Amino acid sequence: MRLYQMQDSGNCYKVRLAAARLGLPLELVGIDILKGESRTDDFLRRNPNGRVPTLEFDDGRTLAESNAIMFYLAEGTPLLPAARFARAEALQWMFFEQYSHEPYIAVARFWHSIKPGGREEKKDRFPEWHERGYQALAVMERHLSTHDWFAGDACSIADIALYAYTHVAHEGDFDIAPYKAIGAWMERLRAEPGHVPMDWRP
Amino acid sequence: MRLYQMQDSGNCYKVRLAAARLGLPLELVGIDILKGESRTDDFLRRNPNGRVPTLEFDDGRTLAESNAIMFYLAEGTPLLPAARFARAEALQWMFFEQYSHEPYIAVARFWHSIKPGGREEKKDRFPEWHERGYQALAVMERHLSTHDWFAGDACSIADIALYAYTHVAHEGDFDIAPYKAIGAWMERLRAEPGHVPMDWRP
Repeated sequence: MRLYQMQDSGNCYKVRLAAARLGLPLELVGIDILKGESRTDDFLRRNPNGRVPTLEFDDGRTLAESNAIMFYLAEGTPLLPAARFARAEALQWMFFEQYSHEPYIAVARFWHSIKPGGREEKKDRFPEWHERGYQALAVMERHLSTHDWFAGDACSIADIALYAYTHVAHEGDFDIAPYKAIGAWMERLRAEPGHVPMDWRP
Repeated sequence: MRLYQMQDSGNCYKVRLAAARLGLPLELVGIDILKGESRTDDFLRRNPNGRVPTLEFDDGRTLAESNAIMFYLAEGTPLLPAARFARAEALQWMFFEQYSHEPYIAVARFWHSIKPGGREEKKDRFPEWHERGYQALAVMERHLSTHDWFAGDACSIADIALYAYTHVAHEGDFDIAPYKAIGAWMERLRAEPGHVPMDWRP
């Protein structure tokens, strides 16, 4: 399997981390979105929505959307809960991540720390991103104050999905130190067997 | 099962339509987000993220996020592809819907047609919503020009997810008449057995 990706994208890190945890081989192909490489005709044939990560199988089929890729890789493994309700809970938290977390916490990080000149260009948007991002962190903190993991009773792809951008939230100028339950959960996740950091490459 | 919902929310319509197609009984409980009813302590106990739809089971467990609820209801039925890759494709399109489609097409509709005074209050945001919304429609049109459905070879919850706000996109001031493949797909979906319109109640 070939992963079209950017190393400092949290969405791409999700797939790398899930593959590492599962011991799946992955060939990385760099796509620099800042240079427009996700909008070339060649890349749009692989993902008409022009986004990374995009997974390509040896037979040429492709799959996009980080959380859908993780679901595919994790089916039948301990990273996806076997019970029907817990599996739906994992998806609930992954949809929460893409709708209520990533658009504020990841987007703030992109414009604060990745895109040159982004802090100035988007300075009017940061208050909304921070307000909504802190709301998402509060929802996570509330859940983690009574649960070790987001779905079922083990670390799953829902945890990986939420870890990817939460652990670099400070790069979007968020202060997550007050969120003690989130801090403890991140420690637990990093202690799981097979864990790799964001800069890891297979 | 009890669905906390708003009748004119497309996200809630997804669950009603999936339940109707599957012949599942559903009790509706109205939550008026314009009156703050999704932010009461009582409701936040059911969904700490304060959003509809939220499904409540007879034993008190709850499930949020429209697409996760549909996945739960559809597992083991023809509305979720049985093949692993097609199932992941269905999720790919549902994550596309929540990340690249709903935040522009549904949000434009909310401020254009649902929220009183919204057109004026958010007039600076409509250009971005329309630009991104038309990009999402173009991605759908490209897929539907060579496929009848979004995942696998039958109508699935991925189609229901994308239909919910596409069929009312005009209420967000989108003109979808030029998107012929989308128009034909919406006709196919409406012809499926068990289809119900947005104003239907069980």
